Amino acid sequence: MFELDPRLAAGSVAVAELELCQLRLIDDSRFVWLILVPRRAGLRELHHLTEAEQRQLVAESGQVARLLEQLFEPDKLNIGALGNIVPQFHWHLVVRHEGDPCWPGPVWGCGDGIPYSAVEREERITSIAAGLSA
Amino acid sequence: MFELDPRLAAGSVAVAELELCQLRLIDDSRFVWLILVPRRAGLRELHHLTEAEQRQLVAESGQVARLLEQLFEPDKLNIGALGNIVPQFHWHLVVRHEGDPCWPGPVWGCGDGIPYSAVEREERITSIAAGLSA
Repeated sequence: MFELDPRLAAGSVAVAELELCQLRLIDDSRFVWLILVPRRAGLRELHHLTEAEQRQLVAESGQVARLLEQLFEPDKLNIGALGNIVPQFHWHLVVRHEGDPCWPGPVWGCGDGIPYSAVEREERITSIAAGLSA
Repeated sequence: MFELDPRLAAGSVAVAELELCQLRLIDDSRFVWLILVPRRAGLRELHHLTEAEQRQLVAESGQVARLLEQLFEPDKLNIGALGNIVPQFHWHLVVRHEGDPCWPGPVWGCGDGIPYSAVEREERITSIAAGLSA
């Protein structure tokens, strides 16, 4: 049975349940940084999903990416699926802007996160969730 | 018309032409590090491909990933599509081993690459190309 890894749970908050994935916001106010976690027990690698599930993941990522383009006008979106620290498969989708605190390097392993305030976090979740259901 | 960005060309060598993507080996002997570059002019983001092309990219990535598992027994594969420095869309696929020079951090932005010797480079390309056509 799928259970979210406690390390992923600790650093992020749920935004929406998509058909395959749980969409979560990483609690780091330096970036708009989301992860998609397929609800599949024991999954470590993208190509271990069925073809239909891979297609679904990419479709969900695209849906979220289009919304992030509208809401946050990224200079670049960054996708990553690393899992060196938490092997439970999770797909990062990060809004990047020129001059952001880690630009042009990756966000992974870049300095310490700055948690949102409770109000900011709630606003961000609400705007993304609302955009997805619009 | 599609033309490979000269910065991608300079740091990597062609391994194979897949249906959608050119498969290239990054010239850094610290890792088995490949990139897939869809032959689509002006492409910057995954979700800007058509759905069929996205499916094809993920299928090609999966084909290469399965081969990398056989040949190099990764502890983890890392996928990334960043493009902060070279915005031409390219999809990284990296074999990671515990204790490798950047473990558990990302390979991007991690130290300086160590080019292959000509012999090593040719061997690596040959083994991967042979595996793909097997």
